Amino acid sequence: MPDILHKVAIKASPNAVYRALTTLDGLAGWWTNDTTGDSNVGGVIRFQFGDRGRIEMKVVELVPNRRVLWQVVGGPDSWIGTKVSFDLSQDADHTVILFKHAGWKEPSEFMHACTTKWAMFLMSMKSLGETGKGAAYPNDVHIGHRGD
Amino acid sequence: MPDILHKVAIKASPNAVYRALTTLDGLAGWWTNDTTGDSNVGGVIRFQFGDRGRIEMKVVELVPNRRVLWQVVGGPDSWIGTKVSFDLSQDADHTVILFKHAGWKEPSEFMHACTTKWAMFLMSMKSLGETGKGAAYPNDVHIGHRGD
Repeated sequence: MPDILHKVAIKASPNAVYRALTTLDGLAGWWTNDTTGDSNVGGVIRFQFGDRGRIEMKVVELVPNRRVLWQVVGGPDSWIGTKVSFDLSQDADHTVILFKHAGWKEPSEFMHACTTKWAMFLMSMKSLGETGKGAAYPNDVHIGHRGD
Repeated sequence: MPDILHKVAIKASPNAVYRALTTLDGLAGWWTNDTTGDSNVGGVIRFQFGDRGRIEMKVVELVPNRRVLWQVVGGPDSWIGTKVSFDLSQDADHTVILFKHAGWKEPSEFMHACTTKWAMFLMSMKSLGETGKGAAYPNDVHIGHRGD
């Protein structure tokens, strides 16, 4: 099954990046400003993108300053059951994120779009960590012309 | 073998996008300003990224306003023999690009980085098509901290 892979380096501490991935405030700063729920292991975080839809992530694994693993429990059909992970490592004054969105059943056109859009949101997280300001929905960078 | 997939929509005609993919001037506007060679079928285009390296693409297939297929004949070891394609379609006043970089042997950390970086360059092409100004090397958007 094809995976979406990304890598970014953020000039911030692993702890700062980990907080951006594991607190509602942090997540709201780079993915969507409407982030609610329980970000502890076993909890479900709800990411609402206005009337474009909602993604619900169950928090499966948290290793402080090292790793975050979610499983999609709500959202587009092709996302249900897929897993999203962020593996962090420190490199000098940067934190490197290896990102994986795994378990796609097929390399659909939607998967193409999600790959590009994840890059925009990871760059949004980079901007949040380096400048204090991300580009979360509804101020996200558009890759297409239908709100995507 | 894992592939890198992306999708972007550019507010420009298929012909304008096709020219950005098939002329040296067009390519220099979004990928690297140091683009030379022969962009006809069977030719080799050289993309020089300063002292960071060079990528050489053999032009395998050109379908005007529809499709561009390259095979990597020079560049990083893991790129050699891989194929890069751009499939274009018109959607209202936009041209949709489905991008694929296929034939990677393994999902290496470098492949993660290349996925993210391709997104930056595709967004550069989008910017070129919509504003007349891309973000080609050496003015590319960095995803890391080592010139990448």
